Amino acid sequence: MFSSDYLREISDRAISGLGSSAEAQRLYDPVKYILSQGGKRLRPVLCLMACNLFSDMIDEAIMPAIGIEVFHNFTLVHDDIIDKAEIRRGVPTIHAKWGLEQAVLSGDVMTFIASECIAQAPPKQLLKILRLFNKTATEVCIGQQLDIDFEKKSIVQEEEYIRMIELKTAVLIATSLKIGSIIGEAPDSDQNLLYEFGRCLGIAFQIQDDILDTYGETKRFGKKTGGDIVANKKTWLLVKTLELAGGQDLKELKRLLSEKEIVAEEKIEAVKSIYDSLGVRLLAENLSYEYINKAFESLDSVNVKKDRKTELRQLATSLIGRAK
Amino acid sequence: MFSSDYLREISDRAISGLGSSAEAQRLYDPVKYILSQGGKRLRPVLCLMACNLFSDMIDEAIMPAIGIEVFHNFTLVHDDIIDKAEIRRGVPTIHAKWGLEQAVLSGDVMTFIASECIAQAPPKQLLKILRLFNKTATEVCIGQQLDIDFEKKSIVQEEEYIRMIELKTAVLIATSLKIGSIIGEAPDSDQNLLYEFGRCLGIAFQIQDDILDTYGETKRFGKKTGGDIVANKKTWLLVKTLELAGGQDLKELKRLLSEKEIVAEEKIEAVKSIYDSLGVRLLAENLSYEYINKAFESLDSVNVKKDRKTELRQLATSLIGRAK
Repeated sequence: MFSSDYLREISDRAISGLGSSAEAQRLYDPVKYILSQGGKRLRPVLCLMACNLFSDMIDEAIMPAIGIEVFHNFTLVHDDIIDKAEIRRGVPTIHAKWGLEQAVLSGDVMTFIASECIAQAPPKQLLKILRLFNKTATEVCIGQQLDIDFEKKSIVQEEEYIRMIELKTAVLIATSLKIGSIIGEAPDSDQNLLYEFGRCLGIAFQIQDDILDTYGETKRFGKKTGGDIVANKKTWLLVKTLELAGGQDLKELKRLLSEKEIVAEEKIEAVKSIYDSLGVRLLAENLSYEYINKAFESLDSVNVKKDRKTELRQLATSLIGRAK
Repeated sequence: MFSSDYLREISDRAISGLGSSAEAQRLYDPVKYILSQGGKRLRPVLCLMACNLFSDMIDEAIMPAIGIEVFHNFTLVHDDIIDKAEIRRGVPTIHAKWGLEQAVLSGDVMTFIASECIAQAPPKQLLKILRLFNKTATEVCIGQQLDIDFEKKSIVQEEEYIRMIELKTAVLIATSLKIGSIIGEAPDSDQNLLYEFGRCLGIAFQIQDDILDTYGETKRFGKKTGGDIVANKKTWLLVKTLELAGGQDLKELKRLLSEKEIVAEEKIEAVKSIYDSLGVRLLAENLSYEYINKAFESLDSVNVKKDRKTELRQLATSLIGRAK
């Protein structure tokens, strides 16, 4: 079995080999900028690992795997425009550095680079992979739309929130694994178990991300905590608190959400104390663990020897373990 | 042979049948809005006609044909953001009506709707069509980048300008024809002749569009003339004039381009009089006819009976004839 470090290296190398155009350097400079920032390469590594569960020949999965990574980075470029985010991974976002128009256009070309990578899947599996990729890409757009819509709604139901993070985050992780398993020639049942593994893992991961934004240590989390509270972002914690809170708590929470002049630190502390009084952190952790358990049940059911799943299990554990 | 009116109807019907998502109506409303505005449906009609040259079974070309139309409309949505255009086809643009963020996201989902349509090409031709489509989509982005870059450059060479319109406009028309001919099972040589026919037609069309923006009758052209001059747009006319003009003409032209307070009508008349003194309108018309001739030479060489080409020839003539 290949280690996640090795698969990350393979992904990095393949990404750095992606073509550009001498004719339109300004178009590709932002593309190279965001793709060279590295990161975990979670999606291509998961794709290659899923392939590797069933086959030691993973070469044919490399281009589709990095196609998914290019697509993921495209969503970051355009989401940052939509969220007016100026910084990502500690450096200026593309629209902050090159302007809005350039971020729109360089993001656009990334969707076609991604499609071209996906098109390099083995011909006999191309149609299935292509359909799955297009369906997933569309779902990610729908997830982003729901996220935008939620910010304008006063009440969001918990199920609506879970559906949003499922579409915006989880389905792409699920699809990374499924595409890898298709190329590894897994039986349909295992392809679907891996999709379910990734879907539940993605939801758990996003709930933990919400917890971390409020309760994480700045040093380990890598960014300042409390940002979601300051921005009134409808995280699972806030959605659940708006559902559970009554009387004075609810009144105070609504005041804090509508208060425009409040000092950030004060707002963070005040909102956190309402979260704490209702125990929503624990509820969030419990829900996250439910999804993690469902994820590992699916992985356990995949019909390959247990020791072949070690790398995938370790990666998943390290991913969701970061909340501890 | 099917008439262009009939093929336009087929295209309209297929476009109106494109799916959406009850879950994210706000995402799809702008998509339906722009796709329902109709227009000539030039690209899908050309695609279907090219298929029809070789086969009377055109059904398999319908979804790829409308995929090209969806892609074309996606480029309009994002180009309008980049150009800050508020009106298109006489109605508000998507970002003017729904806001910038929505225009970015609804445009994005159109690229995946387009890919999904393209993926419905006949399986045996899928890979070739997909590669061509992705390559062309990337080229269109490069063309748009060159267009943006040109607006910031003081001097643009005529060849650079032709290359820009080739990428931004002509290659998609060429690809529409080639994809249709692939599905019609044309031999490679005819596929390439039709690509060249479309490429030359597209360049001629764009040069004529430049002429029309300055010299067209408002009534026939459908929009106010002189807009390009007011905006200092680097059309073929301006590029050529900057190359040819000397002495007093050049000085006066540069003054007009940098003058910010000038009345629009005055600027239009003054720039037109410099164009006229150098005869650039005639030069543009001659160049356009050169490309038209090259286009028809390619069409003539396509190895099917002459009478099968009548519809395609008529459509091309009506397209480029509108400058007269």
